[in-house]
Amino acid sequence: MSKLKTYILFLFFIVLANWAYSQTHPNLILTKKGVVEIREQLSQLPMLQSSLQQAIDLVDGEMLKGIDVPVPKDMAGGYTHNRHKKNYVLMQKAGVLFQITQDEKYAVYVRDMLMEYAKMYPTLGLHPANRSYAPGKIFWQNLNDANWLVYTSEAYDCVYDWLSAKERKKLEKDLFRPFADHLSVDSPQFYNRVHNHSTWGNAAVGMIGFVMNDQELIDRAFYGLKSDNIKADQKDNDGGLIKMPGQGQAGFFAQLDNLFSPDGYYTEGPYYQRYAMYPFVMFAEAIENYRPEVKIFEYRDSLLVKAVQTLLNLTDVNGLFFPINDALKGMSYLSRELVSSVDIVYHFGGQDAGLLSVAEQQGQVMLDDSGLAVAKAIQEGKQKAYQKKSANYKDGAAGNEGALGILRAGKGENELCLVMKNTSQGMGHGHFDKLSFSLYDDKGEVIPDYGAARYVNIEQKFGGGYLHENTTWAKQTVAHNTVVVNEISHFGGKTDTGNKFHSEPYFFDADQENIQIISAKENNAYPGVKMHRTLALISDTRFEKPILLDVFCVNSDTAQQYELPYHFTGQLLSTNYEYQCPEVLTKMGESYGYQHLRLEAEGQVKGGNAKVSWLANNRFYSLTSYVSPEDKLLLVRLGANDPNFNLRQEPAFIIRKNQQKDAVFVSVVEVHGKYDRVTEFADNAFSSISKVDLLVNTDEYTAVAFQDKKENKWVLILANQEACKDSKHQLNVNGTDYMWSGAYHFIQSK
Amino acid sequence: MSKLKTYILFLFFIVLANWAYSQTHPNLILTKKGVVEIREQLSQLPMLQSSLQQAIDLVDGEMLKGIDVPVPKDMAGGYTHNRHKKNYVLMQKAGVLFQITQDEKYAVYVRDMLMEYAKMYPTLGLHPANRSYAPGKIFWQNLNDANWLVYTSEAYDCVYDWLSAKERKKLEKDLFRPFADHLSVDSPQFYNRVHNHSTWGNAAVGMIGFVMNDQELIDRAFYGLKSDNIKADQKDNDGGLIKMPGQGQAGFFAQLDNLFSPDGYYTEGPYYQRYAMYPFVMFAEAIENYRPEVKIFEYRDSLLVKAVQTLLNLTDVNGLFFPINDALKGMSYLSRELVSSVDIVYHFGGQDAGLLSVAEQQGQVMLDDSGLAVAKAIQEGKQKAYQKKSANYKDGAAGNEGALGILRAGKGENELCLVMKNTSQGMGHGHFDKLSFSLYDDKGEVIPDYGAARYVNIEQKFGGGYLHENTTWAKQTVAHNTVVVNEISHFGGKTDTGNKFHSEPYFFDADQENIQIISAKENNAYPGVKMHRTLALISDTRFEKPILLDVFCVNSDTAQQYELPYHFTGQLLSTNYEYQCPEVLTKMGESYGYQHLRLEAEGQVKGGNAKVSWLANNRFYSLTSYVSPEDKLLLVRLGANDPNFNLRQEPAFIIRKNQQKDAVFVSVVEVHGKYDRVTEFADNAFSSISKVDLLVNTDEYTAVAFQDKKENKWVLILANQEACKDSKHQLNVNGTDYMWSGAYHFIQSK
Repeated sequence: MSKLKTYILFLFFIVLANWAYSQTHPNLILTKKGVVEIREQLSQLPMLQSSLQQAIDLVDGEMLKGIDVPVPKDMAGGYTHNRHKKNYVLMQKAGVLFQITQDEKYAVYVRDMLMEYAKMYPTLGLHPANRSYAPGKIFWQNLNDANWLVYTSEAYDCVYDWLSAKERKKLEKDLFRPFADHLSVDSPQFYNRVHNHSTWGNAAVGMIGFVMNDQELIDRAFYGLKSDNIKADQKDNDGGLIKMPGQGQAGFFAQLDNLFSPDGYYTEGPYYQRYAMYPFVMFAEAIENYRPEVKIFEYRDSLLVKAVQTLLNLTDVNGLFFPINDALKGMSYLSRELVSSVDIVYHFGGQDAGLLSVAEQQGQVMLDDSGLAVAKAIQEGKQKAYQKKSANYKDGAAGNEGALGILRAGKGENELCLVMKNTSQGMGHGHFDKLSFSLYDDKGEVIPDYGAARYVNIEQKFGGGYLHENTTWAKQTVAHNTVVVNEISHFGGKTDTGNKFHSEPYFFDADQENIQIISAKENNAYPGVKMHRTLALISDTRFEKPILLDVFCVNSDTAQQYELPYHFTGQLLSTNYEYQCPEVLTKMGESYGYQHLRLEAEGQVKGGNAKVSWLANNRFYSLTSYVSPEDKLLLVRLGANDPNFNLRQEPAFIIRKNQQKDAVFVSVVEVHGKYDRVTEFADNAFSSISKVDLLVNTDEYTAVAFQDKKENKWVLILANQEACKDSKHQLNVNGTDYMWSGAYHFIQSK
Repeated sequence: MSKLKTYILFLFFIVLANWAYSQTHPNLILTKKGVVEIREQLSQLPMLQSSLQQAIDLVDGEMLKGIDVPVPKDMAGGYTHNRHKKNYVLMQKAGVLFQITQDEKYAVYVRDMLMEYAKMYPTLGLHPANRSYAPGKIFWQNLNDANWLVYTSEAYDCVYDWLSAKERKKLEKDLFRPFADHLSVDSPQFYNRVHNHSTWGNAAVGMIGFVMNDQELIDRAFYGLKSDNIKADQKDNDGGLIKMPGQGQAGFFAQLDNLFSPDGYYTEGPYYQRYAMYPFVMFAEAIENYRPEVKIFEYRDSLLVKAVQTLLNLTDVNGLFFPINDALKGMSYLSRELVSSVDIVYHFGGQDAGLLSVAEQQGQVMLDDSGLAVAKAIQEGKQKAYQKKSANYKDGAAGNEGALGILRAGKGENELCLVMKNTSQGMGHGHFDKLSFSLYDDKGEVIPDYGAARYVNIEQKFGGGYLHENTTWAKQTVAHNTVVVNEISHFGGKTDTGNKFHSEPYFFDADQENIQIISAKENNAYPGVKMHRTLALISDTRFEKPILLDVFCVNSDTAQQYELPYHFTGQLLSTNYEYQCPEVLTKMGESYGYQHLRLEAEGQVKGGNAKVSWLANNRFYSLTSYVSPEDKLLLVRLGANDPNFNLRQEPAFIIRKNQQKDAVFVSVVEVHGKYDRVTEFADNAFSSISKVDLLVNTDEYTAVAFQDKKENKWVLILANQEACKDSKHQLNVNGTDYMWSGAYHFIQSK
């Protein structure tokens, strides 16, 4: 090729590149084309109108009060913290309002506020709170600073063309570029991790990079810092390692490659997945707008689409996320992160009509191209009911680190949903809850997971941060519905040890009408102890609603104490056994969460079954367990050793088996009847189960049975060593020969 | 007048009487004319349609299952109890359905079920449970039997004309007449009281009397039994005297004359008033239909109309009745008794358009002339919002036995409602709660009244009856928000003593915009101790919502221990003082409710104010009290000595002043801010009150002050001896001279 030809080709590429990456504004989230369409169609789209009106009401109200950019001082929940949080939301909304309404007052507001920040930012050192492993300048932690820049990038994009070149230069020089540098090159321990914190950092740097057309920042966002000098044992505030052993990459693509499993499950759990989704989907939308050739929504087999769908399925009947690991209860798919996620994934990820009904419940849409698409589709009546489903979500980047199992049975009033945690530890926010489960009905929690001990953004409670009791109670095994050996938590309560292991999913079958079943093993939580739990939702018209069968086998070479707690809420109604209540209440132990429990009643059964019933949410609940006369049955309550009243004083029922090598816990949980406080009618207030039994327990097989008051009988046989679907099994149980294929055999009497 | 003339006049009256009282059916609740109109207008009236459809769905569903009239056996909550309850509701509805749909299957169903009862009834002795002071035959207590007859009378009226004369004869001879006799002549201790039980009895006897055209029964219903041989000290199951000293009359008119105050307040409280209203309004409708000349709805200055209006005003924002005395929480104006009351009082009591909006919330109407009128009026758009109001309802038949004070301030999100109990004891279901209060906001309870310890119709909990803990906890003074002296309940916890006294309303002023105030005295609860409490709702734009000011003065000749508990719900957030938490929890006492409490934290203040804040229902609450350094500040929780887990383990804050003759408790309660679990924003999470102070306390005057963080100041001066509006007062407080007229003087700084 001649030099001339090369030169012409070179010129051509320059032109092409300039054309392809020529800067129009807005283009980050809202696009120039989107603005035109929104303005044209607004009057026909009520959801878009009301979302716009909400934004106008909020911003206009705050504009009246004037701009306040205080010198950073407070922790989360305090004034300056809340004010700066409000400011970035206001700037983002005002920017969008400027584009849609074309009312210049909004641009003026954004500019003036940005100028205040530009004036202050160069004067700031690290935030004075000095409580974070990676302090911000505006906030106590860089995480919040990254939030600020994600939101503010959109605001800047919206007013970019309206600002003078001189104004833009000042803002970029004094504010945005140093801000992006502080998040990244100045804070490698924050920026170069594979972690939700870094995702925020990457998105923030990339988004401002796009708006400023700064390729260096964009590269830094995509691929992280080239060097970071992070020490191998460096940890964050939550005790999590900064760099996991073997971590090679950093940056946004490293997050996409490593933070999610191939099923779109996020190892920290849905609460953090919700939080992390926002920078993922927002930055992805920006990438789609600026670099469509990346095909970011198709990346890794459409990972972001799967992640949002998985997240929506990890909710109870009210749309509340299952509070696995450190998770605050009450957080739901109504959150703004999910509004963005649903809109963006609908628009860029294949227009799933089920997402529209979620958007309808959310009652608002984003003020951008994706929100426009959703509002339009809803107006055209395209929405379908969102179908939640049973699923076994693989954990780990490669999908080989355990799984989170979800079983759903029954419809409407009869809905029952089981969550079983057979995953990896979940990093620094993980709980010591191997093989634990939680149960939900059509009203919400039945057998709950405690979630985190924290009151986010409530300053009175340790500045809104994680409480001491999060470590001493919420993370501990006894706070969960799984076996505790010798009153010690799984992995001795050590996150580093927990991080090395994951539970082993054994089998999962959600395809049968009468039984949905999930089984998993855990052999690392306690040295020398093998745990194998199988949970099944059984649907049979002879029961009012589906019931839960729980078979938990534990084996050890030496005798141990095994305890299985079932946490519940509401008021105990009755037990079928006698118990003694201590006159004086004391803490039950010194550590692993027992220091927060008090024993309220202790009893033993004479027969073979223990039954407790309770009333909550005007529903009746009963648990019937196969137990031996030596087993101790404890009613306990949370609340000891809680000098700041940080804990909710909730009850639990604990079955304690002492000095045993092998033990099998077999229980049936029923949700039944209802109580109406207005008519004062109690319907189906009593348990239907008359007996729960263990028939066989060998290394190879475990067989259990239960029957109802009409003497209908059900038998479940588990093959403990061979779960393959085609494996043939044969077992004689009490004189009856059973033959079957596969991991389990379920027999219902006619 | 000649004999002939007299004779002709006599004949004329006979004819008139026969014409006036000639029997048409139906005429008891549903009328012949009503049936025609309902059939004509049904298609235009959706509320009537849906109420009809509900009845059809219920009855048709049960008809498929067949008739079951089991031999009585069980207590409340058990099978036979529930079945017979269902039966009478089904018969009543089926009777009405027969009239409206003219489908004979409903008449057949009523007849067949009645015949089963007629077959069984003569074979029955008293109910085998043998637990009531007045056992029924179908149910464990006559009260339920009376319910049965009230409902069944309507069913009988609806099928009367359709039945053969022979069938009627059998039913009246074997079932209705002996049934009415058992309720009355056989059970004078049940029938001849002035009590809600007897009201049911009177109505039942009178209603079946009307249908059977049996003047003897009607007289017995109106005026009671002529003789009864009830002993002076005879008591019912709840420890209430059967006959109050001096009771002369009995029967329905005696109930109207004695059970309500002139304001329509029912001394047992709204929960029982709701229950009692049903026989009152149903029998009144029957009287209006059969004996219009009685003008029953105008009787005693339209007492029944007032009673229903008062009852509707004794509800919180959700329509839940204030749980004064023995009362189950959750009961509301959605109950069937209130559907009847609202419809009947609308139709017969002056067509108050506000009642229509209550009927709309109820979502159903009676299937009778009154329900027709309501459905029609709603369809015509006549409904207006029901306006709840501040009111001071006089207690006692003559209106001179204390009062129940209601203060309401603020609208919508800012709504605050105070209930102060300055009434008489409230008979056997009364609690020892003189001068107690409860506080409600727009979400419900803030400072709650515990209500009753009972799970009505839940068999597992003592057969659904009142629990032991109702006496040992719920009735006791410490279970309420009022002063306890020396850890003993008011009147030594003796109902008979309590029945002799009532509190003295001192003044009440709900006419001012900035302050609504109520004040009362109690000098009999403890010998030698004078108690005087003033409660005010203060509205000031400097506070987010109205606030509560509580001034409680106690005087005694000898030194005593005074304790003032404030019960709350939710999670303690913070205190402004240091406290110690005992390692071991023990019961706080041996009696008067203290045996059910455990001390969780005890502290003292160094400054002059104690402040506690808590979070409930995603709202913040703060209580700031003027206290001295010697005062003990206790955080306690319910739940000790509760072997059957009957009690809700709720917290309370107790201020204890020891060894004092005179004491003044001054507190401000704030409802403030909100917490959003989805956005995780906490707004206005801190108390605005910076100081609460006692300025003056003499026999003549008490002056208190409080100020906010911006040092705005408010002063309230109370004249303790002279509440007359025109009385002139003058007082120097800290160098400032105040002059005013009336019982109180309130000064807001500008």
